[in-house]
Amino acid sequence: MVCLVIKQGGPAALPEWKALFARLMPRLAVRDWDDPTVDPAHVDYALVWKPEPGRLAKMVNLKAILSAAVGVDHITCDPTWPKNVPLIRMGGEEPVMQMEDYVLWAVFSILRDATTWRVGQQDKVWTRQTGPARTSAEMKVGVMGLGSLGAPVAMRLARAGFQVSGWARHAKTLEGVTCYAGTKGLSGFLHACDTLVCLLPETPETTGMVTYDVLAQLRKPAGLINVGRGPLVVEADLLRALNDGTLHTAVLDVFDKEPLPASSPLWTHPRVIITPHAAADSSRPARAAYVASVIEALEQGKDVPLRYDPAKGY
Amino acid sequence: MVCLVIKQGGPAALPEWKALFARLMPRLAVRDWDDPTVDPAHVDYALVWKPEPGRLAKMVNLKAILSAAVGVDHITCDPTWPKNVPLIRMGGEEPVMQMEDYVLWAVFSILRDATTWRVGQQDKVWTRQTGPARTSAEMKVGVMGLGSLGAPVAMRLARAGFQVSGWARHAKTLEGVTCYAGTKGLSGFLHACDTLVCLLPETPETTGMVTYDVLAQLRKPAGLINVGRGPLVVEADLLRALNDGTLHTAVLDVFDKEPLPASSPLWTHPRVIITPHAAADSSRPARAAYVASVIEALEQGKDVPLRYDPAKGY
Repeated sequence: MVCLVIKQGGPAALPEWKALFARLMPRLAVRDWDDPTVDPAHVDYALVWKPEPGRLAKMVNLKAILSAAVGVDHITCDPTWPKNVPLIRMGGEEPVMQMEDYVLWAVFSILRDATTWRVGQQDKVWTRQTGPARTSAEMKVGVMGLGSLGAPVAMRLARAGFQVSGWARHAKTLEGVTCYAGTKGLSGFLHACDTLVCLLPETPETTGMVTYDVLAQLRKPAGLINVGRGPLVVEADLLRALNDGTLHTAVLDVFDKEPLPASSPLWTHPRVIITPHAAADSSRPARAAYVASVIEALEQGKDVPLRYDPAKGY
Repeated sequence: MVCLVIKQGGPAALPEWKALFARLMPRLAVRDWDDPTVDPAHVDYALVWKPEPGRLAKMVNLKAILSAAVGVDHITCDPTWPKNVPLIRMGGEEPVMQMEDYVLWAVFSILRDATTWRVGQQDKVWTRQTGPARTSAEMKVGVMGLGSLGAPVAMRLARAGFQVSGWARHAKTLEGVTCYAGTKGLSGFLHACDTLVCLLPETPETTGMVTYDVLAQLRKPAGLINVGRGPLVVEADLLRALNDGTLHTAVLDVFDKEPLPASSPLWTHPRVIITPHAAADSSRPARAAYVASVIEALEQGKDVPLRYDPAKGY
């Protein structure tokens, strides 16, 4: 019997996971991450979100670690994680579509200056923006990170009528997207956009990458959408840029500390929109289907996509 | 000298209008609506937003009335308006693009349940919606009114990835849009959508058309976007539908009374987004260019589009 332990959604979610895998892969024994009757040495696969450091290392016969999210930083931040075991990122169409939809919502919110309307509604004041609205055809959106989420997001934005640029570490070609690459291409990319969508993975290289200086290079009115990871953006720099007018609006789904502490000044900033790390939140049926397909492939000795590459850091 | 009087933006806007027309049509004498030195009998054209009843009737040699907006109800509500004079609706690409962008913003806001996030942010609480987000491909948007704004909005929504239906008084064919027509087609249309975009003109036939019963026929979760005119929607029915769960979210740009009075319960409803009649707010340069092209055509005896048809009521 192949054994899968799950740490996602807590014990309350286990009956749903069990029912899903019973249909998808009847031969799979699905157990809770904290089930005391499970011998760590008998665990074949672990599907996890933020596993406690040290726990994966005890699973000495692990065939693969399956991340419950597209990012894997919540696993690789454990220095003891077993680096010889394949680590697979969450895939499937659903999180990609959700991310595209979220970014479109955020971009349209910035385009139409929805935070001014929000303040007006809170104050019950008929507050019209000064000057006519820009149109989507005039807006220059830049997507930082052109991986399994960034690339489809950039192409969807282009199809939706925006002017789109993209930046990645290495050169890419995407339909309708002007692509920039590497450290040399960064400044040209930033100067080409007014609205920056941050969809980079969190790695030692990308941590703290979005500084005041980065935000200051954007065209005005400048907007930031962070749907990557909180630590990519230097929070103090973000606040400084918002407060001195360098940055007009920020739509933030990820933060240094989650849930965002009630003490954070971001909650009440009139030109910040906060969402609770919900941009791409795949359903359990979609995640189970993807995980089952990965386990099936690995059991047959096949290669699987979205495998963590230590050289790239994601 | 051809004389154009303007009632839009008040006396403060007149220098901008004058400068614009000086470039576009040097032979045009541009005067303020309330300029006491203007003899009403010498006015050739009037560009107006909400003209005081009785004033247009005094302009006995008027060649055309130019609406400063796409709708003309703000003119035709004056029983004395000179019905023998051509009444021309505002056109041009800019208000169409703005309307498309606004509706996309509103549809994505409903899709992602942005009002739940808004409440969370106000309370500084990390509030995640229950269950995974629907995707745009699953959302069924219905556009009521397929005129000079509704038709391009419906097609843009289809290109943006939504399932789109349209309803108009008479049968239409639009790319990517399933079209319904007339009283007979209304129920089928409503049952085919979860989110209703109201882009009808205000006429005696359309006033009060969106009732509780109409909203109850939508699929769940139901959303309403009103970007037509306030009186199209029965406000008491809207509130009832919001409060008993028939309607999940409403995004409202137009109201029975504008500005929306501070006493309206809509301002504070947790699942209502209020914007100040700003969906399509053409810039003065764009409006001046359109008006100049209309006057030019009329002076040359040519036909112009977007002419009010009393039989249709818009």
